[in-house]
Order: sequence, then structure tokens, then C-alpha cells
Amino acid sequence: MSKRIFGVDLGGTTVKLGLFDPEGNVLEKWEITTRKEDSGKLILPDIADAIKGKMQEKSIAKEDVIGVGIGVPGPVDSDGVIYKAANLGWGVFSIKEELTGLLDGIRVEAGNDANVAALGEMWRGGGQGYDNMVAVTLGTGVGGGIIVDGRILTGAKGAGGEIGHILVEEHETEVCGCGKTGCLEQYASATGVVRLANRRLAKDDKASVLRGKKISAKDVWDAVKAGDELAVEVAEQFGEYLGKGLAAVACVVNPDIFVIGGGVSKAGDVLMDYMVEPYKKYVFHGSRETKFALATLGNDAGIYGAAKLVVLQ
Amino acid sequence: MSKRIFGVDLGGTTVKLGLFDPEGNVLEKWEITTRKEDSGKLILPDIADAIKGKMQEKSIAKEDVIGVGIGVPGPVDSDGVIYKAANLGWGVFSIKEELTGLLDGIRVEAGNDANVAALGEMWRGGGQGYDNMVAVTLGTGVGGGIIVDGRILTGAKGAGGEIGHILVEEHETEVCGCGKTGCLEQYASATGVVRLANRRLAKDDKASVLRGKKISAKDVWDAVKAGDELAVEVAEQFGEYLGKGLAAVACVVNPDIFVIGGGVSKAGDVLMDYMVEPYKKYVFHGSRETKFALATLGNDAGIYGAAKLVVLQ
Repeated sequence: MSKRIFGVDLGGTTVKLGLFDPEGNVLEKWEITTRKEDSGKLILPDIADAIKGKMQEKSIAKEDVIGVGIGVPGPVDSDGVIYKAANLGWGVFSIKEELTGLLDGIRVEAGNDANVAALGEMWRGGGQGYDNMVAVTLGTGVGGGIIVDGRILTGAKGAGGEIGHILVEEHETEVCGCGKTGCLEQYASATGVVRLANRRLAKDDKASVLRGKKISAKDVWDAVKAGDELAVEVAEQFGEYLGKGLAAVACVVNPDIFVIGGGVSKAGDVLMDYMVEPYKKYVFHGSRETKFALATLGNDAGIYGAAKLVVLQ
Repeated sequence: MSKRIFGVDLGGTTVKLGLFDPEGNVLEKWEITTRKEDSGKLILPDIADAIKGKMQEKSIAKEDVIGVGIGVPGPVDSDGVIYKAANLGWGVFSIKEELTGLLDGIRVEAGNDANVAALGEMWRGGGQGYDNMVAVTLGTGVGGGIIVDGRILTGAKGAGGEIGHILVEEHETEVCGCGKTGCLEQYASATGVVRLANRRLAKDDKASVLRGKKISAKDVWDAVKAGDELAVEVAEQFGEYLGKGLAAVACVVNPDIFVIGGGVSKAGDVLMDYMVEPYKKYVFHGSRETKFALATLGNDAGIYGAAKLVVLQ
């Protein structure tokens, strides 16, 4: 029988699961509900049951399962120990040991969900073929997943890749969720784009399709694509901030490629038009040729990356 | 016979060599001249002769040498290929293969000299006991050596750890050696400290022991220690810039510790008084507890780190 891997992406509402071959082809994917009651103590048993059920259904023998990878919403160290996942009700314990126990000894590897998604994009998504990659997630916040020589950079306390909190604006007065001011996340996240647009709208009376309504990041990018001048100014600002932040990242890790994902990235290639030039302006020459690509796996990046955790080179 | 390692630090003027035991104790160290004539083609044979001579002198059998590590002044990839070392006259070739050949098959590992020195500080210097470390060299320029999970972060094109070129001042008009403006190196290097001091001196007539002479970075720090008010202002500026730059680094790699070396670090603990507070102000909370230490190996960091290259975990 061919070898199989399970990839698990544990979220606050649902658990996504995928059955993979060792090359990273997904053979089946499905979801179960994340049961958070009783401090989340049902979650891992539910996942174990889902995996065992699938093995039975597909007649997959235990010895044909290379392992189970799991991405979890919280900091995880290289031994698979999680340090609190507040929205699951979890404290500190070894996911790896606990889930291996529930799976009768099948090998388990665990990682932080954002980092694991980055690994997925490297394996089978926008970063395929590269060993040194930074996944940039432009969503509610701005997150980073850093891959060095094919492995996740976790950091000393699981705070590696917190690129949304690089200072990019000295003169900001509004406070970021992290308590600082002028963080990249305040400009390049979905809410950041809206903040930039609202500030620009308030500055004068320049005509714009964005006037007179509650706007979303998507509205801004749609207006950019339609050639709205004010929206283009906002996109330029967004690109300056993002280019500046990513230039700092490149001075540290010198990636082959940045892979841009998250809700804001749905705007597509137009993002590149505004971020790549500022990046080149701000970056050290040794990183000027770094590539940029859009993420391609969407919400499946997590299960791909989780599966990859058990077949790292 | 006990196992032995050779660590080699190849510089533009001299080659430093060290004989180590596998625990990282240096048993002997010595130097030879770097002969740069003929496009540097004598350098590796000279090194091989020096090692073979020492093996003979000490009756060390080939099978007792675990390997030879070498740090070189230029970008080196993970296969031990160097991409030009301009001041040695070298082009692109595999140091690893070439030196192994000259040493009758003894294992060779090669790395960039700054990165290798960082590894040395992690093994037996200021970063001992930590797996995630950033070595910051405040010398003629500002360099970084980044260690992730005990291994050197090289980057896609060997430009990892170029932290001296992170933007920390939007309003700079003077151009950095790299062609950009406002790089950390323009303020936190030895010449940067002097620049900051000269600018402050030119601003008004405030009394200072630094007036009326050509000053060095050491003069500035001596004046700080003596309580010179103007020098203290300069130190505060220096600390702001360095704290801001290292905060960006920590948002990316979340190290356990920063180890500060290079000529400027000879000022000692007083540096910490000015850089740590700004760092805490600018950094993401997940990296607020990162430690700071001074480098302890001085010019020997390179031979220690080179030796460590062959006994990486």
C-alpha cells in the first residue's frame, strides 16, 4: 500500500483535515467542528477519531501512515509543546505526545498555524521550488511565516515572523493592537488599508468613488483597478509602507521569494504594482532581486503545510 | 587518540588557525600570512600545509581529525561554494571541495566569516547556551550574524544578516556605502558614532570635552563615561537608532539573545545603558525579554565558529 500523511489545520471554529501522498497531492479533505467546551479537552480526541475513521474507511494500515502534522493557533516550540492557545482554552502541554498517544503511537509533528501555512505555500503553493521564503499574510492583521533552508523559523519564544509589528511610521499617533505605534499592520492589513483610505478622504474634497459610504479594503482595490485617483494615492501609501517593512525583513533573512496571501491579497497582481518598486528602493542590494508571488493555496495552505511537517528534508 | 578539529579564519592579511577538541576548547592557536598574489591561488595550499604541519608536529592521525572548518570574507552558500571574495582575488568555486582535496580527503566545512564568528560566540562566547542568537558587530560597518536553532542563517544569496542596512532614519541626506540613506550602519558603526558626535557639536556651542579635536568612537564613549552631557546626548541618539534597528530584527527572528561585538563594543556595558531601553520601546512584546550580552571571544570568534561548523548538532 502507498504511504499516506494526514495534515490537520486546527482553527477556532473548524478543524480542516487532509489526506496526502508523500509528494504533497491531496487525496481527500474534510472538516469537523472544533468543540471548545471543557477547556478544549475534546479537540484532540475528536481529531484522533476523525483520522482513525478515515484510516478505517480507506483501509489504510497504521504502518502506512508516515505521520500526522498539525497546525495550531498559538506558539509551538520545536518539541511540539504549545504555550497557550487562548481561543481554544488550552494551556501549556505537548500536543505531539498527547496526539501520538491518542493515535496509538503514530508519529505527530506540530507547529504554529501561520508558520505551517507558510510551509504549505513553499511545498505546493506560490513558493514552490524555493527553500528560503517569507509568507506575508495581509488579513485582519499582518503576519509572517518564515522558512529558512526549508524549515520553519519559530524563534526563541515562538514570536518569529511577527513582521506586522515592524515600525514603518515614526509619526503615527493611533495605537496598534500590540500597544506600539506605527506598526506595519496599521497600514497593510485590511483595516489598515481602510484607515489609510479614510484618512485620505478626510484630507480634502477630492472626488472619489469611495466617498459617502462605509468602505472595505476590497472597495479600495476595486477603485484602484478602476483608475480612481484618490484610491491610487492610497495604494501608493500602502505600497510604501509594505515595501519598507519587507525591505527590513529581507535585510535580516534574505529570502528567495515573498509569497503574499490573506484577504487583501485577493486584490491580485495589482498589489505588486504598488509594493515591489518601494521594496527595491528601500532594500539592501543583496536582496534587490527577491521575487514576489501571490499565495495560491488559500485556506488549504494549513493542511498542506501540516502534512509537510512530517516529511521535512 | 582524542578527536581534534581545526578552525580557520581567513582574513585579508593573516590567516588565524586553531586546534580544538570537540567540546570547543582551544588547544593551540597560530597565524600565517595571507599570500594574495596570483589571484589568491596560494592561500588554500598554504592553509593545507599549515594544518598538515601541525598534525605532524602533534602526531595527530588523519582519522582523528573530525574536520576542518573555515570562515572566509565573502558570501558562501550551504554547499561551501564561495561567490567572489574581492579582497582575496577569488572568483566562484567550491572551497569545500578544493581544500578537502588538498587535505587528502579530510572533511571541510566553509562559511562566511561574519556568520562563522557568530557561531563561535554562540558555542563558547557571549551567546553560550542559546540556540537562537543574533551577533551584532559594531565596527567599521554594522554587521549581523544570525543563528537559528543552532545553525547559521545564510539567506538565499548569502545576504542574510545584513542588518546594518535596515532603514532607521527617514530624513537622512548623506548616502550610505550601500547607496541608500538612513541605514543603521550610518549611526551605530564606529564612523556612525563619530558622525553623530560631529553633527551634535556643529549644532550649537554647548561645552564638551569632544570639542576642538578629531574624535574617534572611543573618545565619544570615554566622554560618556566621564559624564560629558553632549556625549551623553550622542549616546542617546546612538541607542535610539540601534534599539530601533534591533527591534526590527527581533520582529523577524525572535532571538534568545543579542551578542554585541566589534570595535565599538569595547566601550563595554555602558552601551547597554543606552540601547536596551529604546529596544524595549520599539519591539513587539513577544521579544521584549530578549537578552543582551557583550561578545567575549574578540578576534578568536572566527576560529571557534569555524571549528563548530564541523560539529553542528
